[in-house]
Amino acid sequence: MEPRTRVDLNSDLGESFGAWRMGDDAAMLRLVTSANVACGFHAGDPSTMLATCRLAAENAVAVGAHVSYRDLAGFGRRSMDVPAAELRDEVLYQLAALAGIARVAGTAVRYVKPHGALYNRIVHDEAQAVAVVAAVAAFDPALPLLGLPGSAVERAAAEHGIRFVREAFVDRGYRADGTLVPRTEPGAVLSDATAIAARAVRMVRDGVVESVDGAPVAVAADSLCVHGDTPGAVRMAEAVRRGLDEAGIAVRAFV
Amino acid sequence: MEPRTRVDLNSDLGESFGAWRMGDDAAMLRLVTSANVACGFHAGDPSTMLATCRLAAENAVAVGAHVSYRDLAGFGRRSMDVPAAELRDEVLYQLAALAGIARVAGTAVRYVKPHGALYNRIVHDEAQAVAVVAAVAAFDPALPLLGLPGSAVERAAAEHGIRFVREAFVDRGYRADGTLVPRTEPGAVLSDATAIAARAVRMVRDGVVESVDGAPVAVAADSLCVHGDTPGAVRMAEAVRRGLDEAGIAVRAFV
Amino acid sequence: MEPRTRVDLNSDLGESFGAWRMGDDAAMLRLVTSANVACGFHAGDPSTMLATCRLAAENAVAVGAHVSYRDLAGFGRRSMDVPAAELRDEVLYQLAALAGIARVAGTAVRYVKPHGALYNRIVHDEAQAVAVVAAVAAFDPALPLLGLPGSAVERAAAEHGIRFVREAFVDRGYRADGTLVPRTEPGAVLSDATAIAARAVRMVRDGVVESVDGAPVAVAADSLCVHGDTPGAVRMAEAVRRGLDEAGIAVRAFV
Amino acid sequence: MEPRTRVDLNSDLGESFGAWRMGDDAAMLRLVTSANVACGFHAGDPSTMLATCRLAAENAVAVGAHVSYRDLAGFGRRSMDVPAAELRDEVLYQLAALAGIARVAGTAVRYVKPHGALYNRIVHDEAQAVAVVAAVAAFDPALPLLGLPGSAVERAAAEHGIRFVREAFVDRGYRADGTLVPRTEPGAVLSDATAIAARAVRMVRDGVVESVDGAPVAVAADSLCVHGDTPGAVRMAEAVRRGLDEAGIAVRAFV
Repeated sequence: MEPRTRVDLNSDLGESFGAWRMGDDAAMLRLVTSANVACGFHAGDPSTMLATCRLAAENAVAVGAHVSYRDLAGFGRRSMDVPAAELRDEVLYQLAALAGIARVAGTAVRYVKPHGALYNRIVHDEAQAVAVVAAVAAFDPALPLLGLPGSAVERAAAEHGIRFVREAFVDRGYRADGTLVPRTEPGAVLSDATAIAARAVRMVRDGVVESVDGAPVAVAADSLCVHGDTPGAVRMAEAVRRGLDEAGIAVRAFV
Repeated sequence: MEPRTRVDLNSDLGESFGAWRMGDDAAMLRLVTSANVACGFHAGDPSTMLATCRLAAENAVAVGAHVSYRDLAGFGRRSMDVPAAELRDEVLYQLAALAGIARVAGTAVRYVKPHGALYNRIVHDEAQAVAVVAAVAAFDPALPLLGLPGSAVERAAAEHGIRFVREAFVDRGYRADGTLVPRTEPGAVLSDATAIAARAVRMVRDGVVESVDGAPVAVAADSLCVHGDTPGAVRMAEAVRRGLDEAGIAVRAFV
Repeated sequence: MEPRTRVDLNSDLGESFGAWRMGDDAAMLRLVTSANVACGFHAGDPSTMLATCRLAAENAVAVGAHVSYRDLAGFGRRSMDVPAAELRDEVLYQLAALAGIARVAGTAVRYVKPHGALYNRIVHDEAQAVAVVAAVAAFDPALPLLGLPGSAVERAAAEHGIRFVREAFVDRGYRADGTLVPRTEPGAVLSDATAIAARAVRMVRDGVVESVDGAPVAVAADSLCVHGDTPGAVRMAEAVRRGLDEAGIAVRAFV
Repeated sequence: MEPRTRVDLNSDLGESFGAWRMGDDAAMLRLVTSANVACGFHAGDPSTMLATCRLAAENAVAVGAHVSYRDLAGFGRRSMDVPAAELRDEVLYQLAALAGIARVAGTAVRYVKPHGALYNRIVHDEAQAVAVVAAVAAFDPALPLLGLPGSAVERAAAEHGIRFVREAFVDRGYRADGTLVPRTEPGAVLSDATAIAARAVRMVRDGVVESVDGAPVAVAADSLCVHGDTPGAVRMAEAVRRGLDEAGIAVRAFV
């Protein structure tokens, strides 16, 4: 258990691409403290990246590089057997591109969060976890990595001297062992904004979450992820933010 | 006329993509002093970009960002009506990506050269010329732009305080007015390595080139472009380099 | 003037791509008689293409191949200098892909409509117009082409024995010479659904439309285009459909 | 053991893309009897597809659809967790596109061969194997599938009534259990053209191949694959073809 009095709220933003819009970034950027900005490989064209960074800067929201497999057609949600050296260079490319754009927008990339299938894969895949960490270490070893506690990428980060920031998901079901309920099973995704807000407060204040079995399970949360791309996303983020504020928990970027 | 005692030799490199190879970069990097490195939009995947930057660093060759329209299928050779703001951001993205990769490779992006159809378009298209210049100015106003003398982009660079480096083509035919013979006309491309080498020397030492009509025409050449992707590319570059060396012209990067 | 008692209603559909949604295809397919289905080059992944064809088949809506430049990032809205042979083959590829998918969906491609920048370019560009026509002629010379009357593509179709179907736009302003008011000028796009419906009826019944100058101008409309991707698209299409029905004009596919 | 007096020779062709060339298709098409033609997802732009089909038609070589994951950057060599329905539609799209182009070239798609990582994955992955088979069944159940004997895709084909054509690799090492030696192990790839030719003859005439352990192992070969993209590819294919001819084995397409 790790009771805390502050936490970061992060969300996946800048996921429009060309003519296609996704999410209400302007609304979300008034609620969160960290923005995971797509870097062009699963979403995010250059103009969207620049506009998102500018809006993040105006709202004093920290910018993170939301790096992904190269997969626009699959939105980065399909796990890929990318050789480690290739993956490292692809992450480096995205990180560098966003860093330059963020600087032009008057801000900077403050952290890295792998997206979608890559995020899930490096929970277990050591070679790909090391590849992601190696890209960060090569680009800027002071940048923290945001990910799942207990994962291969947390271990790889520790070995390479990269700070690791532990993330929890306010609207996802947890199993008794602390892992997430797979999306294919019942209880994987929660939708009641009030319950989610209470859950968020408990995660931070008490360091626990109720598992699908009803038993409390320890959860370490430096940052809470709120989704930005669903219809009710803004309302849910508002509820979480209000809940945390009312509980006296400071919502601040971890960087 | 602008007789000179030194000149830069540049070539388009790093144009492989995934499983596809193009050019003999290792050989060319022993001959040229500036490498226009593809940034992923017309060619150049992240691993190729990193390897090319490393090889350039080892050979003390200056790295330039060879920015392009987003057009892998057309190799950046098809002019596109990209709105100015979008083009600026696309150039910025490529420039930033290569800059980060070059830094990891132990070197840096020293200049920017637009590629293919974009290069040709901003000879005349003011809006796109300004867009390219604006990207450079936003990213790093100390970076020079390499392009055709007398072009819209030269004027735009002057207006925005960006240094402009004038390029000449050793294997292209020139018309009496100093413009290039279009590729669809006879005399557009030369292939005799010896003649080309002599032409290169004359361009630099005397500031003139013989036009297709036989008359001498003034040519301002801070940098000479030698092509890297044709079968005889290396042999031609060797001849040009040897010719310049024997004429006592110092071959050095302009940056 | 060409007064008529029947007309086709067409709309651009199937323009989602991967995780990105666009338009309310299900609603539009209950109102139109021809569906211009994106073929993967500006929008439309394979699963979207198949689902759109199936829905069109269920609604007895004719399927057309909405062929485009290869430009997902620009949604096919950026004119490109694609060499004619290359463009012909790109159109052929898209047409063939959709034809096979439509067949699996229990229907067939009945016509071809170029999309966006390609549509506009072949109003004037003869080489590209001929390339598009050549692709249709090679694939199936019985397929009609949908386009702007008086265009280069209408002439090219006539020369190659391809049937040409003349399109009018219910929500676009017309100039006194019968051309469209460019989107950069006032009066380019109309938004009052009632006025647009009345305009549609007049276009078909009387063969005229009121130009931006207030004068009537002749318009030949075998098919009326209603847009599918804007917020008010469905409401406008409903108004147009109701107006035509009430005026006793039969709304039927032209094929 | 299945001794035979005839066999098919297939090769991966049409793998150029835009400005990038791969392989010597013209030379290979004089030697093989079946051409696996890339369909645009791992290689093969529309013009390359058309040119390859035309050349195949001129040489009376059967055209097969070489369908792949959507992965130009990885040349289809990276296994991807594509959901089954999505994969089926992607295969259908490629198959349809090539079928239309082949028809315009005066020939037809006669079979389907999955490429690279997809080929290897459906040896074991039942869901993806069924997806590929479902695409073929939906498009044309008379088209045979070319693949590895004993694979999940062979079983799926049998269940769906799709003919399965068994492939062997003349230049790959086999283990005692009949599976291929992984490329990461010694003995995975053979390079001596004379030995490979003798091996090809033995595979067909005697139905056996010598494993890396030296023991003979049964191999069922309706079609022998010769690689087309390596420097010595043409010479090796010539040796194999000559060996088969001299052994009195008829080299003919299986369709």
